[in-house]
Amino acid sequence: MYTYRMIIRLQDTDAAGVLFFANYFRLTHEAYETFMAGIGFDFYHMIHEWDYLVLIAHAECDFKRPLHVGDAVTIHITCSKLGRTSFTLDYTLVDDDDNTVATGNSIHACVNKSDLNSIPLPEVLKAELEKLRE
Amino acid sequence: MYTYRMIIRLQDTDAAGVLFFANYFRLTHEAYETFMAGIGFDFYHMIHEWDYLVLIAHAECDFKRPLHVGDAVTIHITCSKLGRTSFTLDYTLVDDDDNTVATGNSIHACVNKSDLNSIPLPEVLKAELEKLRE
Amino acid sequence: MYTYRMIIRLQDTDAAGVLFFANYFRLTHEAYETFMAGIGFDFYHMIHEWDYLVLIAHAECDFKRPLHVGDAVTIHITCSKLGRTSFTLDYTLVDDDDNTVATGNSIHACVNKSDLNSIPLPEVLKAELEKLRE
Amino acid sequence: MYTYRMIIRLQDTDAAGVLFFANYFRLTHEAYETFMAGIGFDFYHMIHEWDYLVLIAHAECDFKRPLHVGDAVTIHITCSKLGRTSFTLDYTLVDDDDNTVATGNSIHACVNKSDLNSIPLPEVLKAELEKLRE
Repeated sequence: MYTYRMIIRLQDTDAAGVLFFANYFRLTHEAYETFMAGIGFDFYHMIHEWDYLVLIAHAECDFKRPLHVGDAVTIHITCSKLGRTSFTLDYTLVDDDDNTVATGNSIHACVNKSDLNSIPLPEVLKAELEKLRE
Repeated sequence: MYTYRMIIRLQDTDAAGVLFFANYFRLTHEAYETFMAGIGFDFYHMIHEWDYLVLIAHAECDFKRPLHVGDAVTIHITCSKLGRTSFTLDYTLVDDDDNTVATGNSIHACVNKSDLNSIPLPEVLKAELEKLRE
Repeated sequence: MYTYRMIIRLQDTDAAGVLFFANYFRLTHEAYETFMAGIGFDFYHMIHEWDYLVLIAHAECDFKRPLHVGDAVTIHITCSKLGRTSFTLDYTLVDDDDNTVATGNSIHACVNKSDLNSIPLPEVLKAELEKLRE
Repeated sequence: MYTYRMIIRLQDTDAAGVLFFANYFRLTHEAYETFMAGIGFDFYHMIHEWDYLVLIAHAECDFKRPLHVGDAVTIHITCSKLGRTSFTLDYTLVDDDDNTVATGNSIHACVNKSDLNSIPLPEVLKAELEKLRE
């Protein structure tokens, strides 16, 4: 399990006084991005230098409790499916009172930049994702 | 079916040169927001004056083709489920060559502001959603 | 003078119930982007195909009145300075009661992509900007 | 001087491969927000419980070097003007090679929520801002 902690910013909230629903996906992506950079898959090199990309094919979220500006949220990431060319990450967002505020998942596919065709996941990435299996 | 057309802006894209995945949810919400305002459920009054809210309980999206800055996208909204206290909207995002670039849905629940408990959908909203049934 | 009209969206507001200050710059950029695309300088071609860019060297804004979700705002753009390699755009944001809600400006420089050095503005761009002189 | 460090995220960049100009203001606001929360002026209480607000009357930024996804940036905040009802914060954004990537400032005014009229800054806030004087 990978764990990432962050604070809800004013820019993430909307006029209803709570985190805008689309911004939950920004939160989970920030956690995912930090995980990936930590295992050598930083987005700068992936986007600007490598010949393949890990792109997002699907994303979903269930919103259970509102988050407000200043709230701390802890994001737990596990890998619920690990295939040859794709993988699924599950997210659980927990507040400081240990309430689950949201759950979600995203499906990621490894593709050639030239034609966007699926290619096998790099072995080193598979090995790291294996550690996030539940 | 409700239809809304928009242009992808530079601010919606990311360093990979395409629409950032979380921003698909901003697009569909803009379409939903415009639909709601058009039938008398504008967010200003809902948030600042009424004693109930229509909140988002779930959202998901399948990303099929990249969108780039300047691309036009047409969003078609239908209502695939209409319950007593909640409803589901389905989105299809289509480019100008008639390619489906993404599909998604969101589940909306009508709740009291005071306790966030579910309450029946207003009849006028149900009537308008009925028109979006496939 | 170039004029662009838009509606404030929920995603643009924050928990204080008003447009988040940084999003004024997103509004004015959307107006600028639409102006540029209309005269043949669309960002897709500029970013992905041309060998030069028009980048933003400075931006500022005075916030005079709050904007709320659903508010319409009209953005007027004029060109207050037109140099050999750069130009300044002035923005006035007006609500439907003709109140000025914000004023601002941005300085744009034409640069080579290879070394980011200043180069002369294209003649066709200068001619179009000349039409926006006050 | 107050110092805040952060990482540029994919969501902050645009199709030109660099930080989108309006997002510099999101960065500096995140630094400002964290400073304010640290001295007892957190936005949750300010927005939802107090009878006054500190709002932003002006913001500007000079963009000197591009920032890319994954770049670390350190934001230094000083207080260049401290008045009876308002104050000015200056920002310097520095990368890990000690290059200044941007400079900017924002003017903040203390106002009654009821009528948005200026009121004197709280003494405790003035005392903390005094420590940020150059």
